[in-house]
Amino acid sequence: MEKGQSMWGGRFRKPPHELVEAFNASVHFDKRLAAYDIQGSIAHVRMLKRQGIIAVEEAERIEAGLCEISQEIEQGRFEFRTALEDVHMNIEHELTERIGAVGGKLHTGRSRNDQVALDMHLFVKAEAGQVLELLHTLQEVLLAQAERYMDIVIPGYTHLQRAQPVRFSHHLLAYFWMFERDRERLQGVVRRADLSPLGAGALAGTTFPIDRVDVAETLGFAGIYENSLDAVSDRDYILEFLFALATVMMHLSRFSEELILYSSTEFGWIELDDAYATGSSMMPQKKNPDVAELVRGKTGRVYGHLQALLTTCKGLPLAYNKDMQEDKEGLFDALDTVKPSLRLFAGMLDSLTVRKDRLDTLLQGDYSAATDLADALVRDGVPFRAAHEVVGNLVRYAADRQIAFVDLTPAQLAEAAPQVAPDWISALTPEHVVEARTSRGGTARFAVVEQWTRAEEVWRSHR
Amino acid sequence: MEKGQSMWGGRFRKPPHELVEAFNASVHFDKRLAAYDIQGSIAHVRMLKRQGIIAVEEAERIEAGLCEISQEIEQGRFEFRTALEDVHMNIEHELTERIGAVGGKLHTGRSRNDQVALDMHLFVKAEAGQVLELLHTLQEVLLAQAERYMDIVIPGYTHLQRAQPVRFSHHLLAYFWMFERDRERLQGVVRRADLSPLGAGALAGTTFPIDRVDVAETLGFAGIYENSLDAVSDRDYILEFLFALATVMMHLSRFSEELILYSSTEFGWIELDDAYATGSSMMPQKKNPDVAELVRGKTGRVYGHLQALLTTCKGLPLAYNKDMQEDKEGLFDALDTVKPSLRLFAGMLDSLTVRKDRLDTLLQGDYSAATDLADALVRDGVPFRAAHEVVGNLVRYAADRQIAFVDLTPAQLAEAAPQVAPDWISALTPEHVVEARTSRGGTARFAVVEQWTRAEEVWRSHR
Amino acid sequence: MEKGQSMWGGRFRKPPHELVEAFNASVHFDKRLAAYDIQGSIAHVRMLKRQGIIAVEEAERIEAGLCEISQEIEQGRFEFRTALEDVHMNIEHELTERIGAVGGKLHTGRSRNDQVALDMHLFVKAEAGQVLELLHTLQEVLLAQAERYMDIVIPGYTHLQRAQPVRFSHHLLAYFWMFERDRERLQGVVRRADLSPLGAGALAGTTFPIDRVDVAETLGFAGIYENSLDAVSDRDYILEFLFALATVMMHLSRFSEELILYSSTEFGWIELDDAYATGSSMMPQKKNPDVAELVRGKTGRVYGHLQALLTTCKGLPLAYNKDMQEDKEGLFDALDTVKPSLRLFAGMLDSLTVRKDRLDTLLQGDYSAATDLADALVRDGVPFRAAHEVVGNLVRYAADRQIAFVDLTPAQLAEAAPQVAPDWISALTPEHVVEARTSRGGTARFAVVEQWTRAEEVWRSHR
Amino acid sequence: MEKGQSMWGGRFRKPPHELVEAFNASVHFDKRLAAYDIQGSIAHVRMLKRQGIIAVEEAERIEAGLCEISQEIEQGRFEFRTALEDVHMNIEHELTERIGAVGGKLHTGRSRNDQVALDMHLFVKAEAGQVLELLHTLQEVLLAQAERYMDIVIPGYTHLQRAQPVRFSHHLLAYFWMFERDRERLQGVVRRADLSPLGAGALAGTTFPIDRVDVAETLGFAGIYENSLDAVSDRDYILEFLFALATVMMHLSRFSEELILYSSTEFGWIELDDAYATGSSMMPQKKNPDVAELVRGKTGRVYGHLQALLTTCKGLPLAYNKDMQEDKEGLFDALDTVKPSLRLFAGMLDSLTVRKDRLDTLLQGDYSAATDLADALVRDGVPFRAAHEVVGNLVRYAADRQIAFVDLTPAQLAEAAPQVAPDWISALTPEHVVEARTSRGGTARFAVVEQWTRAEEVWRSHR
Repeated sequence: MEKGQSMWGGRFRKPPHELVEAFNASVHFDKRLAAYDIQGSIAHVRMLKRQGIIAVEEAERIEAGLCEISQEIEQGRFEFRTALEDVHMNIEHELTERIGAVGGKLHTGRSRNDQVALDMHLFVKAEAGQVLELLHTLQEVLLAQAERYMDIVIPGYTHLQRAQPVRFSHHLLAYFWMFERDRERLQGVVRRADLSPLGAGALAGTTFPIDRVDVAETLGFAGIYENSLDAVSDRDYILEFLFALATVMMHLSRFSEELILYSSTEFGWIELDDAYATGSSMMPQKKNPDVAELVRGKTGRVYGHLQALLTTCKGLPLAYNKDMQEDKEGLFDALDTVKPSLRLFAGMLDSLTVRKDRLDTLLQGDYSAATDLADALVRDGVPFRAAHEVVGNLVRYAADRQIAFVDLTPAQLAEAAPQVAPDWISALTPEHVVEARTSRGGTARFAVVEQWTRAEEVWRSHR
Repeated sequence: MEKGQSMWGGRFRKPPHELVEAFNASVHFDKRLAAYDIQGSIAHVRMLKRQGIIAVEEAERIEAGLCEISQEIEQGRFEFRTALEDVHMNIEHELTERIGAVGGKLHTGRSRNDQVALDMHLFVKAEAGQVLELLHTLQEVLLAQAERYMDIVIPGYTHLQRAQPVRFSHHLLAYFWMFERDRERLQGVVRRADLSPLGAGALAGTTFPIDRVDVAETLGFAGIYENSLDAVSDRDYILEFLFALATVMMHLSRFSEELILYSSTEFGWIELDDAYATGSSMMPQKKNPDVAELVRGKTGRVYGHLQALLTTCKGLPLAYNKDMQEDKEGLFDALDTVKPSLRLFAGMLDSLTVRKDRLDTLLQGDYSAATDLADALVRDGVPFRAAHEVVGNLVRYAADRQIAFVDLTPAQLAEAAPQVAPDWISALTPEHVVEARTSRGGTARFAVVEQWTRAEEVWRSHR
Repeated sequence: MEKGQSMWGGRFRKPPHELVEAFNASVHFDKRLAAYDIQGSIAHVRMLKRQGIIAVEEAERIEAGLCEISQEIEQGRFEFRTALEDVHMNIEHELTERIGAVGGKLHTGRSRNDQVALDMHLFVKAEAGQVLELLHTLQEVLLAQAERYMDIVIPGYTHLQRAQPVRFSHHLLAYFWMFERDRERLQGVVRRADLSPLGAGALAGTTFPIDRVDVAETLGFAGIYENSLDAVSDRDYILEFLFALATVMMHLSRFSEELILYSSTEFGWIELDDAYATGSSMMPQKKNPDVAELVRGKTGRVYGHLQALLTTCKGLPLAYNKDMQEDKEGLFDALDTVKPSLRLFAGMLDSLTVRKDRLDTLLQGDYSAATDLADALVRDGVPFRAAHEVVGNLVRYAADRQIAFVDLTPAQLAEAAPQVAPDWISALTPEHVVEARTSRGGTARFAVVEQWTRAEEVWRSHR
Repeated sequence: MEKGQSMWGGRFRKPPHELVEAFNASVHFDKRLAAYDIQGSIAHVRMLKRQGIIAVEEAERIEAGLCEISQEIEQGRFEFRTALEDVHMNIEHELTERIGAVGGKLHTGRSRNDQVALDMHLFVKAEAGQVLELLHTLQEVLLAQAERYMDIVIPGYTHLQRAQPVRFSHHLLAYFWMFERDRERLQGVVRRADLSPLGAGALAGTTFPIDRVDVAETLGFAGIYENSLDAVSDRDYILEFLFALATVMMHLSRFSEELILYSSTEFGWIELDDAYATGSSMMPQKKNPDVAELVRGKTGRVYGHLQALLTTCKGLPLAYNKDMQEDKEGLFDALDTVKPSLRLFAGMLDSLTVRKDRLDTLLQGDYSAATDLADALVRDGVPFRAAHEVVGNLVRYAADRQIAFVDLTPAQLAEAAPQVAPDWISALTPEHVVEARTSRGGTARFAVVEQWTRAEEVWRSHR
């Protein structure tokens, strides 16, 4: 087919420059939508038939042709051609090659503008579903590891300074809730994507007596766009998807940072499984947390795609503009980043080992029980700010001498902080400290178990 | 008060460098949270009282002191001091000045980490509510103008080329639905912000027997954070708010672009009210759409704030890090951008004039009825692609001679497109074209009226 | 080769999970660096030979092997394998297959960290050179069209409102200078990329007696990195390249916006060549400026890549981190966006047509000579602000009656603006207005010719 | 003054809505340009005088008035008013109040478009100069600390895993070179900003016989814009400035991350001075690296401002559009972020302490000499990949038994790695490892001293 002729040639005196053809073409990436394109076309042609817009026999030939093409695509036997610009024209052209001119009737009452919008809505719904599933699996791993490590106590940090010890289970559950919010946002994406744009035509609807609701129902949409201009120019649901993916990556980047830290020699209490680490071609001793680093690094990439599409959409008049073709590659790449990241994280978390011996060493002798000591003074009637001062001085005293709280002698205590009763000191172990935080959402065992139970209920309710 | 002494001095040998003090201080912007801070403190102190953690009389003195301070702040009589770092310390310090050391008991069982998180949750809920309200008002104007301009026909564009005429009402309603989606996203923000973080302490909860649910209920929260680490390190709801605001701005930037175009000399069919335009200090003839330009330009600013916080959050380990103090100024500025933009847009839309005479001129003689002519050929049995070719040739023929479709003589028609019946030509007026698109979401009068009615129902259901 | 074994296996008990292998692998994109990788390896092996680190015969066998591989890659006969992770290991592995274990000596005294840094420096220098060349060509078209359209007068805009008429040549030359600045920035990129990192090893240099300056000279570098840590962790030159490309796109996006506007029906004075426009599959009358729209839309993409890498680099400790592998794909894609955009713009500008008839119509009857009228009053002794007021009133008077300045009768003038001498009115043609701006950089013919001459000199001096 | 009347009232029937006035106003931020505005006005008025465009006596009265106003502004006695929109109108209005209608002649031959562009060019040059100076000072501190800590050996990392030990001086010097590149980029900014836009008028020049070169020379510019449209619509130099600042922050964010890590309990070999750290209001033991965290966090902010202006500029037609008013606040805030960050970093670096005892402990017993052992095998004739395997196995053997290399017995060595000669083992101390890297840019003492000397020469050449 001479494209300049058959697709939109009448008004034109010459075909596009070959560079233009290549620049405009999208088939090298939008072929990813082929299955959705055919699914949409079949629903459309059935409706055309039901509405009497095309003959039953024509509709059946078209549908049969589409099914054949669909199979060939699935089997990797279909050759997409750049000269045919996009996935839609590739399929329609092939259809006409196969079943003759009647194939052209498939495009009755629709435009590529509403057709590609339909494909993207189907794609987004399906892919968001997959990301939801991957989050669910990752949360399952978190629940399992939180159960397994319920009684492991780790240092808790603020400002990356030792703050108060926490249960590792508690730490893992913090991520459970982050990913749960990611799920909520993705469900919002699905909700917003769950409207059929088909029937909006190029921008204004169509002169054919189509039934938009019928097509929407066939395809499982919850509703239709109420406005044809909006239907073809809306890219909100893609932006919202990109934002939800950016947030997933942000959470993963935080988790990555921690795994990188905790598996360093200096922290050293997490050991990644060999299958989730890599070595150095130069330094034989290295065991590098490449996966965590890549996930952290790829966060920028997903942020970039979000920013890119926001920029593209800025200041575009209604309705369709070619700029909007830029809505796909960034999303595709974001999904190709987020989905493996989630898969790898699940495996990496599931297989890591906690070195309890190292944790015991780390927790010895830091001063992260200081708040508890201040609280004890408060209970003894000392105003909080004064108690804080007393304990701060004691920390300085002990740190200067490199003595842990629990190793302070009564004499030392008397010298540095006479307000502190010697027997309080024995309560300043990490285990006591975590058990002392009994309010909901705190670190005491029963509070964490209760939290875990709530989390598990939420997780079970996902479907 | 010597800060280095009273707040956290015990461990330190010297106070912070004065540049550090200024760099760390946040009171110059977080004083905006003062009302929420006091509201949260009152709820907290009532709970401390009910739980018997502090004495009734103490609680009452604290509450009374806070009420006094609150009034002074409202009346602009309170002086915030940088040396006291943030809004929380300013208020607490003032409280202690007034009611004595008992004021220090207010901070029992909480930390600045969960306190500031609480303030931000209250702030976000309130501000999101205001943006929802402003969108509601803007939608009201859109409904009113859509009703008023139901029968005005304007050129519809794709690629900024004339595509098909549409009703101006239809065009306006496209924006109604965009802003409706913005509202949905904002409601998601409110939902995610509707959890109380108080009681999470610095990161791990508290050793005092607080009742987190009680405080949450007093403050009207739907629930509480289940995990203390998550409670103090979550900034998702702020990011989500920034994203929702970025999308609002994106929509406004598109609308702005259109107003700028349509009020240019070349388009010329929209006249902005003098109160919503500005002149030039140099060129006396100018009437500039400054508001629309500024809104379009400020879109970048809101995008930038979103990107800024995403970047800040990337790779931060749990729980609180000082980096997170960066969550406020961008959001404050985004709100100070979006809220006036929405207000101004409502006024600008409400007061603009449509120049029907200019529209009549514009619509004469373009070829945006070409699709309808092709559709007529299709109904006559010509395959779509062939019909498209015939009409494309006719457009070229007519354009070369600068003749409108409706002015083509039968002889010219016979020469250029013999397949076209001369009496079809009379149907190629803009009015016929818009009326021909009868499917749901299309441009026919009854379809737009039906759409308007649905929109109005949605709008009425907002509260 | 079992990768886990041969590359870095000793320390590991099991090979990486296959998902990890795929996630870490970069060969699917970094194979683009193959030619530079081999060029760098040859320079390295020659130096090793000269320094006596490896034997002459060994060096020659390695170089011969590399040359063979290089040819096969050029001819597309080389098969890159994901299991070998990256372009470096693919080539080294193939080398060893061919020439035996001696191939392993190629890696003596270097690490993949400095090797990939070297490849990227060579790549950036070469690609920046190509972009410089494309800008040069585009500027050539601008000079040619500015010469051709020296005497075409078009409306000049501020706020997209008619401001003052300008020569089209002047307008085109504005872009000449923008692209000239882009060239300057790219030259800065080249300057910063013109240092060899080789010899930095993984991070700390090497224990072999290499000669870094020798390699740098062989490869045509202006110098070497002075610090090994910096050499392997610097990504500034890539960021700077991305920024320079973002600015190119920003300029092209502005030009695109103008071409889209000027080729709309409403402006209508630019006609794109059919070879640089596309049609609609649905609307036979459409002639869409797809190229300009795509370029405008793809601006977001290049911005996104810049933001992505900035984000990735944020907060990374020295020296190499795996995150930095993310420095390539964004740059590759940015180049694949910018280079065709520049090529297409040159062709599109070269082939467009200006419709002088349409310009004459447009310029009739607007009030963009108002500033000149005010200036005339000022010369007559009226203070500027008063003159502005007089002319503003006259514009309102004339606009209300839809009369052009030049068509105002003396009676009307006497009524609306008695201060204005009737014979001034005849000077208010577009031609007079552009000729009146004689200062340097202004719109008078001799000023534009002078500017053109300077531009042409700058352009000639490019090499 | 009624603004709607005097500035651009003639054409308007009513003044702007008060919300519009507030939205458009920029004086609350552009008053920061006041000194540059007056400096530019004085140069302009002197030129007008020399060219005979205004009378000598008029020019002198204007200049005297401007000088008075300038002093009042400096002394904080000038009241800027929002109703007068921007800094230019505030000053011009005040001038006219003082010296009468002749003040209006100041605006002869210029427009606010070229005037504000002039102000920004002067501002950018001055501020870039200040940032250059701050970088110079920070580099001075780096040189001093590198000299002081020449012989301190620290762990060097890749992937945050111990890679090879390096001198702390070497590590510090890596930052010296990064900041040196930042300086180069800033000099590029200055070069591009060093052109005077004055005389471009609103967009097309002026009808008055001004001398643009004269004004440029008075103000110390290297040249003038050759094209009036370009002069008023160019924002490249601001974008370039923002990019240069973003890169500075990126470097600081990396340094911050390291200071945060190295001052954590786990690393623990850097002690921040108390004056550059802060405590916790809750946890008495905390010493938080707030400054480093804030700098790292604020990196997002500067990135965001860059992205914001890039977005704003995307797709804007020539020449001036109101959107461009958005070029200022982001830059102002970026400077208010970067300048204190640089100042604080210099102080923080200057005052920190290195804990050598802690470093000695850390470096004991890691395997970061593994590469040297492999290199020894290579020198003994073992191919590199085989040597790597041998050492990898030895690392695993030693790590399983928690033995440092230097503590391996000959028997153990014979068992685990018989190829390794026992006497090589004694060379595997950190000191030997750093001394073994003698190539330029490496870690041997003389190489670092040589590097330091080059750095110091570069620094001295700054001026």
